[in-house]
Amino acid sequence: VPPGALTLTLDLAGVFVFALAGALAAVRKGLDVVGVITLGIVSSIGGGLLRDALLDAGPPAALLDWRYLAVPSAAAATAFVFHPALSRLQRTVRILDAAGLGLFAVSGTTVALEAGLGGGSACLLGVLTGVGGGVIRDVLLREIPLVLRDGQFYALAALAGCLVVVVADLLDARGPVVAFSAAGLVFLLRLVALRWRWTVPAPRGIGEP
Amino acid sequence: VPPGALTLTLDLAGVFVFALAGALAAVRKGLDVVGVITLGIVSSIGGGLLRDALLDAGPPAALLDWRYLAVPSAAAATAFVFHPALSRLQRTVRILDAAGLGLFAVSGTTVALEAGLGGGSACLLGVLTGVGGGVIRDVLLREIPLVLRDGQFYALAALAGCLVVVVADLLDARGPVVAFSAAGLVFLLRLVALRWRWTVPAPRGIGEP
Amino acid sequence: VPPGALTLTLDLAGVFVFALAGALAAVRKGLDVVGVITLGIVSSIGGGLLRDALLDAGPPAALLDWRYLAVPSAAAATAFVFHPALSRLQRTVRILDAAGLGLFAVSGTTVALEAGLGGGSACLLGVLTGVGGGVIRDVLLREIPLVLRDGQFYALAALAGCLVVVVADLLDARGPVVAFSAAGLVFLLRLVALRWRWTVPAPRGIGEP
Repeated sequence: VPPGALTLTLDLAGVFVFALAGALAAVRKGLDVVGVITLGIVSSIGGGLLRDALLDAGPPAALLDWRYLAVPSAAAATAFVFHPALSRLQRTVRILDAAGLGLFAVSGTTVALEAGLGGGSACLLGVLTGVGGGVIRDVLLREIPLVLRDGQFYALAALAGCLVVVVADLLDARGPVVAFSAAGLVFLLRLVALRWRWTVPAPRGIGEP
Repeated sequence: VPPGALTLTLDLAGVFVFALAGALAAVRKGLDVVGVITLGIVSSIGGGLLRDALLDAGPPAALLDWRYLAVPSAAAATAFVFHPALSRLQRTVRILDAAGLGLFAVSGTTVALEAGLGGGSACLLGVLTGVGGGVIRDVLLREIPLVLRDGQFYALAALAGCLVVVVADLLDARGPVVAFSAAGLVFLLRLVALRWRWTVPAPRGIGEP
Repeated sequence: VPPGALTLTLDLAGVFVFALAGALAAVRKGLDVVGVITLGIVSSIGGGLLRDALLDAGPPAALLDWRYLAVPSAAAATAFVFHPALSRLQRTVRILDAAGLGLFAVSGTTVALEAGLGGGSACLLGVLTGVGGGVIRDVLLREIPLVLRDGQFYALAALAGCLVVVVADLLDARGPVVAFSAAGLVFLLRLVALRWRWTVPAPRGIGEP
């Protein structure tokens, strides 16, 4: 997507929310200001950086536009100062996070398709764009990444949006309507999953003799 | 190697085994289905992805051929369902893993040489292709990578195969005969090391006053 | 910087020191010889590899010159054998590390500017070049990266040098005088910070009810 003003604004909003959540996690772990700002940056643009490093299509988009550094830095600084208040907004953060997940997964899939990848790989990179920043965040905080173990319907919600983009692309449908529909689907699925506590299965019999 | 049918089949067999082992490790750690599938994928194609991200020679081979996603996903799904039975096949998995290590190390070295790297760097990327997936797996599971600390003759077996490829290349010998000899050497060294419990040294005096 | 003899020598000296420190950390963690050599290599050239993988400007410089593998391997082997003596040289290692940090941060910023990135991204990649190897080292050793949590004036010292390079570039000043001034600034700031125990702030109120 050659980012129009609306797409860019929404994408930066997603970056802001992901950075806020990442920086709050760093605050809770007792990191210093360098750690909080770093976690804010990598949580928000890390997934896109991973995607672009794999795609080998020139420097990452996030490094060519100063707003992709300024916005997460501002979000992290906000979290650094106002974390006591922000920690009470978990519910709001989670809703905004669902929106960011949808936008990132859809833009990641689109970029991968435009780079000539097949549908399966495009979905993989779409999900990676959505959840990769959080995975890097958890690894830096010495946690097994939440998305791999908490049984939440999170990566699968992102995958659903990626599949919509891929199927639409096969039918020659592209552009903002497809993108917003797919991102909206991720957002709705995620909210429904939170509301009704959808879970994904774990292997049988683990923890038993 | 422009992968002929035999090379491709063997490579995918290696992917299958590495994915199976990675997914079983995820099952043992109590990850959910998203984690098990993810660990299967990154354990098997992660080393090659790292190599290709470093080489900057276009999108990774594993993302341009759908079988490199389908095979590890199928292996991980198998591990998710049949882990109680599979966990009793540790011995078989270890033998197949030795074969995969040889194939990955050799193909990684070959790709690096073809990209114009020198012998030392080609060996580094060859070993990385062989052990990188397991390193990512261990980091995601919050373990210090086994290959760096268990004292087993594992990375060094891979290195031996890489050196054979590099020396043969210096003598203008390339192609399937060299590749299979080098991979076979890794396989044999690894089996011998397992059978006679070869170890690599640790620093002196650690753990003592 | 097309590395002149002086720049190359200094850069390799930085690589040697970073590799020594990384390998000593691996020894302390009880890794085997494979782990010690690996940690030596990734601690020293890991930051540059990350930078080059993100920049997508062809294979990393460190993989195109055999000395960037030989020097850290030799440093790590030295640490493996002589760690009891070397562990008593913490003070010297810390001073040399400050020099390496300056050289790496400055060369990373310069490479990023030459690749056409803006000032902010160039600073990000400069700091990443300086501290990235240590971050990979800590992740592999299952630690939350020190640079993110120890409250030391370390990444900020690197950032100061990066900013000098970026501002000088805006004023059309480039070349060895700028580079050595900026690296020297990092070195001095780091020594002053060590001497007078400068710290960076942590979030308020963490650890209290």
